[in-house]
Amino acid sequence: MDMSENRAGTADIGVVGLAVMGANLARNLARNKYSVAVYNRSYGRTETLIAEHGHEGTFVPSADIADFVASLSRPRVAIILVQAGSATDAIIDQLAEHMDEGDIIVDCGNAYFKDTIRREQACQARGLHFVGAGISGGEEGALEGPSIMPGGTAESYARLGPMLEQISAHVDGEPCCAYISTDGAGHFVKMVHNGIEYADMQLIAEAYDLLRQGLGDSPAQIADIFESWMGTELNSYLIEITSEVLRQNDAETGKALVDVIVDAASQKGTGAWTVQTALELGVPVTGIGEATFARGLSSSPTQRSASGPLEGHATPIAVADREVFIEQVRQALYASKIVAYSQGFDLIQAGADEYGWEINKGDLAKIWRAGCIIRAVFLGDITEAYADNPDLPLLMADEKFAPKINECIPALRQIVAHGALAGIPLPAFSSSLSYFDGVRADRLPAALIQGQRDFFGAHTYLRVDREGVYHTEWSADRSESRWS
Amino acid sequence: MDMSENRAGTADIGVVGLAVMGANLARNLARNKYSVAVYNRSYGRTETLIAEHGHEGTFVPSADIADFVASLSRPRVAIILVQAGSATDAIIDQLAEHMDEGDIIVDCGNAYFKDTIRREQACQARGLHFVGAGISGGEEGALEGPSIMPGGTAESYARLGPMLEQISAHVDGEPCCAYISTDGAGHFVKMVHNGIEYADMQLIAEAYDLLRQGLGDSPAQIADIFESWMGTELNSYLIEITSEVLRQNDAETGKALVDVIVDAASQKGTGAWTVQTALELGVPVTGIGEATFARGLSSSPTQRSASGPLEGHATPIAVADREVFIEQVRQALYASKIVAYSQGFDLIQAGADEYGWEINKGDLAKIWRAGCIIRAVFLGDITEAYADNPDLPLLMADEKFAPKINECIPALRQIVAHGALAGIPLPAFSSSLSYFDGVRADRLPAALIQGQRDFFGAHTYLRVDREGVYHTEWSADRSESRWS
Repeated sequence: MDMSENRAGTADIGVVGLAVMGANLARNLARNKYSVAVYNRSYGRTETLIAEHGHEGTFVPSADIADFVASLSRPRVAIILVQAGSATDAIIDQLAEHMDEGDIIVDCGNAYFKDTIRREQACQARGLHFVGAGISGGEEGALEGPSIMPGGTAESYARLGPMLEQISAHVDGEPCCAYISTDGAGHFVKMVHNGIEYADMQLIAEAYDLLRQGLGDSPAQIADIFESWMGTELNSYLIEITSEVLRQNDAETGKALVDVIVDAASQKGTGAWTVQTALELGVPVTGIGEATFARGLSSSPTQRSASGPLEGHATPIAVADREVFIEQVRQALYASKIVAYSQGFDLIQAGADEYGWEINKGDLAKIWRAGCIIRAVFLGDITEAYADNPDLPLLMADEKFAPKINECIPALRQIVAHGALAGIPLPAFSSSLSYFDGVRADRLPAALIQGQRDFFGAHTYLRVDREGVYHTEWSADRSESRWS
Repeated sequence: MDMSENRAGTADIGVVGLAVMGANLARNLARNKYSVAVYNRSYGRTETLIAEHGHEGTFVPSADIADFVASLSRPRVAIILVQAGSATDAIIDQLAEHMDEGDIIVDCGNAYFKDTIRREQACQARGLHFVGAGISGGEEGALEGPSIMPGGTAESYARLGPMLEQISAHVDGEPCCAYISTDGAGHFVKMVHNGIEYADMQLIAEAYDLLRQGLGDSPAQIADIFESWMGTELNSYLIEITSEVLRQNDAETGKALVDVIVDAASQKGTGAWTVQTALELGVPVTGIGEATFARGLSSSPTQRSASGPLEGHATPIAVADREVFIEQVRQALYASKIVAYSQGFDLIQAGADEYGWEINKGDLAKIWRAGCIIRAVFLGDITEAYADNPDLPLLMADEKFAPKINECIPALRQIVAHGALAGIPLPAFSSSLSYFDGVRADRLPAALIQGQRDFFGAHTYLRVDREGVYHTEWSADRSESRWS
């Protein structure tokens, strides 16, 4: 270990990887009076950070990873914010080589939670703490105060937590950062956060499409509508920025910017991870699923350009009362949003059950109230719901939410019917309604599916009236026998 | 190698694993005049097979895997039909230990295609051929003639193919077995086959629910309706057995069996694999996704039993003309089925592109025409569509299918609207319609999503009017800059 230079061992915390997110997080720490060691593979970025923002606080730059580690006070805490995947593994190895027992490596990137579990085990074997911490809030959040979801050991949180809590966003004096649970729990809940974000964005996009194609409003008019919704339960960052985006005009053409942007949504994979994980755990997250597929569909040029022979174009909706229709769209959005969160929290619970995490779901909703992309007034209600009943089995049926969703469902029914008849694609609205109708159904046609499965594969079925596993001899005399 | 006993080296082919599927496949081979070596971990099953079915042909039983291998003629061909996962790996190891260069191991279980790719590589390194062969048709198919989808090397198919083709189902003298492509291709297409099966079964279940809850018909009446659909484009095995299941009465209670079966659909994982793979490859398979989630929802007792506070129960649909409504349901089912297949074939193409397989999609539709669970008259049209244009970019927009789906879409619109308003959950019908409306939309609200992403994460966007990647300075002067 290189202990040269008198700055050795002085920095409170370090940041590795100084692209925008890492640089902003380092600046946030420095502004909060922490002495921040900084390192980047190419030193140019480190120099730029010091040159442009060195005055904001105490930075301790290193051109070399050994110097970087040596510049940290013990037990050392190094946050890494590099590309997910092999780059993360490489940096962990380099850090571990120079670190000592009890030091803490914090991965604030968007890692897949199973990678985090694996890395935590590997670090533990080397005597190090490894913390997978989800961070949400984008570039601005990283600088001004993000929402932070750290996993790892409770011991590491004792050293790391106070710093993260201080730099996080705050609501009524409370930090938007809380210890989630062991190993991959932080990255797991961050993944689900992103999944909910996908659903929320798709639902907003569908609401926009209804107002644009169905009602015939202009982007500016729709911006006003979204802005007015900021005064309702829908008050949220995504609704706010939707209104900003819709109000933006393209300087060159004078058109609304939204009409100039190519309508192919990109994705960086966390939506797909969420749905894949939900499939693995058997949890229906239909809103997130449809939102993820909708992005995929929008980015399928081969299929879209071959669709010419398919007939029908979206038609305006015959709206009797403009204000009533707008309110229906708003209620449909709110009901669907409750469904998306309810499904997301089901997935978090299933993850906790599977991986042995103790996750306080009320705390989680609390730290999502600010800093992150899905921040919304609505999350306060979720916190209260779980405070009243930590084991709440179905968020949307909570005594606080059930009356709200019940009030809005008739509007969602109307809107889904309108969309179907007018040819406006509403995958997330429709699947939210189907989920609502499915989960509260007394009887589902799944019984027929069990009958079919028993017919072609002898997969057996249960009976409603007594214990046991049964099979009907479909290709023989059709008698029923009990198999176990 | 144990070459004892005079039966050594005489069997044409061997089967390892004599549970129902394996035993039936062995019997099918024996009935087709092949001499079949048989081996099961516990010898009791082997004895039972010989005792009950030994007269059907030539079986060569072994109590020991070395004897089993020795009883095969060269190059040896051993089919394994054991539990997926580690049991499969264990048997492969045991066989490989006794086999010689050029011998062929065939996995006819429902393996995950990535496992098949891995196993193929491992066997290749030992000088053996490994063939992942998907088999569909259930127990009866295995005995009477299944649909078989073998991957692996072309060389192994030369030895193995004629036997598999002979025991497969046949349509107009053509076997329902064809070489798919290298390594995991066979198991990949079998996986997608099962995914389509999930969608098809869910669509049928939703059609049933509409007729039951919406129209108020009894299971027996609905059995008649499904039976009548056998005379239409919907003619298929699943429609046929649906009618059989619905007509079945419970001997004990006298009720329709479908009302006695617990309405919680099970799954063995291939639906989830299909959707997970589609997410990995970015292909929207919304019908399969909703079908898989619908099974998950039906099997979520915690959520379902907590749904009490959610209001509304399915209500009958005010049907003006009974026959018109039934025909609408039929057309909705047909349109949605075309969508499910179109999405499934998109996934197969994406898999072929990703893994370097040359898959003849027309051949595939051909070998699904009989033997397998999704067998349907309709598949002949798919074969023709791909025969006319092997690179067809969107099956449902083919000149044969576009007029059919265009004709049925208005009915699907009505049905989705009816379901939404009546509270009958139609996740697969709705998502099929959303996909149709999405893929043929001139403009999707995905542009708004790109705007939001650029706002909160500087994720950039493309412009419709010129090349380049752009970003708007949302938190500064809102000017636009070109990033690349």
